[in-house]
Order: sequence, then structure tokens, then C-alpha cells
Amino acid sequence: MTYIFGHKNPDTDTITSSISMENLEKKLGNSDVKAFKLGKINKETEFVLKYFGITEPETLEKIEEKADVILVDHNTFSQSIQGIEKANILKVIDHHCISEFTTKNPLFYLAMPVGCTQTIIYELYKTNKVEIEPKIAGLMVSAIISDTLLFKSPTCTQKDIEIANELAKIAGIDIESYGMEMLKAGTDLSDFTPEELINIDSKKIESNGVNIQVAQINTASIEDVLKGQADIENAINDFIKKNNINIFMLLITDIINSNSEAIVLGDKSEIAEKAFGKKIEENRIFLEGVVSRKKQVFPVLMENT
Amino acid sequence: MTYIFGHKNPDTDTITSSISMENLEKKLGNSDVKAFKLGKINKETEFVLKYFGITEPETLEKIEEKADVILVDHNTFSQSIQGIEKANILKVIDHHCISEFTTKNPLFYLAMPVGCTQTIIYELYKTNKVEIEPKIAGLMVSAIISDTLLFKSPTCTQKDIEIANELAKIAGIDIESYGMEMLKAGTDLSDFTPEELINIDSKKIESNGVNIQVAQINTASIEDVLKGQADIENAINDFIKKNNINIFMLLITDIINSNSEAIVLGDKSEIAEKAFGKKIEENRIFLEGVVSRKKQVFPVLMENT
Repeated sequence: MTYIFGHKNPDTDTITSSISMENLEKKLGNSDVKAFKLGKINKETEFVLKYFGITEPETLEKIEEKADVILVDHNTFSQSIQGIEKANILKVIDHHCISEFTTKNPLFYLAMPVGCTQTIIYELYKTNKVEIEPKIAGLMVSAIISDTLLFKSPTCTQKDIEIANELAKIAGIDIESYGMEMLKAGTDLSDFTPEELINIDSKKIESNGVNIQVAQINTASIEDVLKGQADIENAINDFIKKNNINIFMLLITDIINSNSEAIVLGDKSEIAEKAFGKKIEENRIFLEGVVSRKKQVFPVLMENT
Repeated sequence: MTYIFGHKNPDTDTITSSISMENLEKKLGNSDVKAFKLGKINKETEFVLKYFGITEPETLEKIEEKADVILVDHNTFSQSIQGIEKANILKVIDHHCISEFTTKNPLFYLAMPVGCTQTIIYELYKTNKVEIEPKIAGLMVSAIISDTLLFKSPTCTQKDIEIANELAKIAGIDIESYGMEMLKAGTDLSDFTPEELINIDSKKIESNGVNIQVAQINTASIEDVLKGQADIENAINDFIKKNNINIFMLLITDIINSNSEAIVLGDKSEIAEKAFGKKIEENRIFLEGVVSRKKQVFPVLMENT
């Protein structure tokens, strides 16, 4: 059996890419493949799977030695499953930079500098002349909408837009109205404790000895989220102490207007002031037009360490 | 400008893949790209370039910071150019395992578990619907013949064979007769000193604290090469001392009959006896049917350390 899975803290691209790769492999004659998830799915992904009537993948806790695996939407071992170092990686389909990736055997590796893994998987369907069913096309376009925030993120490429429109046609959806509905479904944060909220999508980098943690949540109303600012700050301060973080930013991203308000804490929080040329007030900083952590936040923070 | 190049100690696949990628990029509208080599070409490659009337690429010594590069036929930084760590890697096209590969930015990375990089580049021509000119097809089929020893190496896949036959048609060559002529051109070792001979194509691995070096040369007559065994042994013993090697094997591969005779030296040379279940006599061991260092030599040596 070949296990297909994306990264920990799964998002819509990671979950649906596992499913569309399982579908493609099966259509190419590899019947013994199965998509898995490495953790609880989020509200947005839940909306997408329900909308297109697709069952949620089972959870995989760890992987045995020499198991055959296909990685989607990630390559870094620390973001992957326990035991990945000793697995037999057959394929990787990904759109991230590559980080200390090592395999013992030659493999199939396809990465492209595009906004979403599903954009690459679409190319694989085309190359292999496999038709995409409407339901699978629905999952694929959802992932592109999710990763590019409906084409507003600077990570979005012309290819993502063209392919998303093509997939929307096959899926029979109106990309704008479906897209907003889907993104809004992902902004329902009512189930989360403050501790969970700051861990929904959180990434750490180290730059010149400074530990930088940037978490991100999407919302249709920044004001609503800020009603809980005091509790969120407590959760962040606990996290900072436990994990030895020097600057923690929680990006609260307004998906309607494509801006972010960030809560900034830590003994090196002045790095954010230098990076964005603004003062932090009430532990917050407003970032006009900022929606991409990868392109608009991490690089400027790193330059100012 | 985008620099395209393969690995150090270039072979026919590395040199011709740089040239066919330059050709493909230009046909796709990227005019500012150029193929380079990282060292002296071998006799086989010289024969190929002359046969198809293609000029040898210029040599590149090092690369400036942030230069745009495309890597073919390798990914490991130690096999690449000086300064590669700080270059901007745009694309990698390769058929090897991946070894501690790291980039700062997302990139295009295409690897496939096939016998030759040109097999993958052929797929890129197809995907992009670019026609392959006869001269370029000639270079491409030459690389497949070279890397698979005319389909006899266990690294050769069905895809390599199909694509090589397709390319031979475009190039207008008879694959068997041209292939033998080309491989024989590569066996002309008359220009090399013993020191150069053991460095033509030499790779090192470390396994459980044992330093293993395996060099390989192709010949149409093992006997002819062995006339110089005493001088070759002196060169190997010098290399062992300088580089702290525990077992050095020089595979002398008979490309007509697909066997190898190995000269084996070093304080751990008994590893080769265990690995192949035969005694070393006069510092030599005959390896029936062995032509691939990657598949038939390194793995069994490693298992016996």
C-alpha cells in the first residue's frame, strides 16, 4: 500500500491534494493507494468536503519503516509524519521551497513555484491525459481559492488563476460566490480556545539567533476577533515562555478587504516596528494589503534581525 | 542571464542535458540562458558533440551570489559549482536521489526514477509541445545510451528505451551501431595518466565509519587496461593515503560483454570479498554482469560495513 498525505496542521490544499492524488494514481492503475490526514481538518476544509460530498480521509499517526509514501504540499520532514526519515518516498508534489530534503533512492519529485499544490496536480492530470471528474475538480479549485485567498495573495500566479477557472467550469461552480462562501466558512473560529486559535496555522523560523513565530487566522471581521484580545495575549505569552520565542505575531487576516491586523508580543517585538515602519499600539499593528506570511511577513522580519 | 550546468567531472548526460535544456528554454522564449560545463569533457562526449556538429560549452569556474541557475543531472551541492549555496536555483532536472537539498525560494524541480536526465528533458519537450531538432535528438539519445550502456545497465527503465528509440528516429541514426561506436570512443584512455584514470568518474560514500571510494572506467578490452595495473595501483595507493580511504575499487567495465573487473585496495578491502562472495586475487576481483556502481556495487558494499 502507498500512503498519500500532506503536512501536519492540515489545510484545504493539503487534504484535497491527498485526495486528488489518490484519484489520479488509481486512474493510472495503481489501485493500492490511499489518502490520509495527519491531524484534525479545519472548518474551511470541512465545508469543502461536505459541499462536494467527499468523505474525510482517515488519520495516520505514524508510518512503519520502508512504507511506500507520496508526499503532497510539503517536503520538510519536521512538518511530516513521525517516521518519515525511514519511509520509502516514491513521489513528492509540492509548491514550497525545499529544506534539507534527503532520500536514499531516486524518486519522482515535481515542484513548481505556483500558489497551490493542486495547480501542479492539474498539470499531472493533463500530462497523463486523465479526465478530471466534477467532484475532484471542485476540491482542486477550492484549494486554489484557499491558498491564494481568491487570487488576492501575492503568491498567486497567472497559472493558478487560469487553472482555477478551468476547474470551476468542470465543477460547475461560480468561483466568486462559492469562493467567498468557502472562505467565510473557514472564519468560524467559535469552536477554538485561545490556545487552539494561535496554533491553527503557526510557523517558526530562526534568523540570526532570533526565534520568530508567525501564526495566521482568517476572518470576515477583525473587530470580532479582537473582542478576545486579552485572552489571546495570555495564550501567546504562555506560548512564548514555553517555546523560547523572541517575537510572536498573530496575523488576523481580513479576507474581504485583504488586510491584516497583527497582535505582536515578545522581547524583540520592535523588529516588527522596524520591518513595517509603524509603531505597535495596544500590542497591535495594522498591515495594509498584507495577506501572505510567506511573501510579505517572514522576509521583512528576517531582514530586520 | 541564467546559467545551465550539470555536475563536476562531466559525463555525456551532464553536458548534453545542459545543451538540450538551453535549447528548450530558448524555444520557450527565455533567450538569456546559456549552457556551461564545470570541467574537461571526456572522449565519449567529444565524439558525440563532433558527430552532431555541436560546439562544446564554455567552462564555468564559480558563480556569483544570487545568480540565476538551472541544475541538470545533479542536485548535491558538493558535486556542483563553487558558490552554489548562494545562487538563485530556478530549476532542477535530475534522476538521482536527493541529498540535503535546500533552497530559499520555491522552484521548479522535476526528478524521475529513470536511467538518464535526457529522458526527463524529453518529457519536458513533449509537455511544452516543443519539437526536437535532429541534432538535439542526437545528443539526447547519446546520453541515454551512455548512462544505460546501451540499455544493459539495471538503472535502465522501459521509458528510457522507448524514448531513446524515438529520439534515434528523429536523429536519423541506427541506435545499435552508433551506440557501440560512441561507447568505444569513450574507452580511448590513451591520453590519461594513471592519476587521471582513477579520477575520470570517481564517487565516495561513508558507511558506518568506512570511507568507500569507487571509480569506474569503460573499456572494450579489460586486458588492455590491466597492462598498466602496477602503475594504476600506485596511483590508487597514493589516493588512499591522501584521502583517508578504507576501501578503493576501480571498476573496469567491459562494455561489449557487460562485466566488470575491479582492482581493490585499502585496509578494509575484505569488505569487497564479503560483498561479492569471492576472493580478491592479485588485488583483483571479477564481477560477472556488474555494470552499475549505483545499483550493483555501492549497496552491497554498504551492507557489509
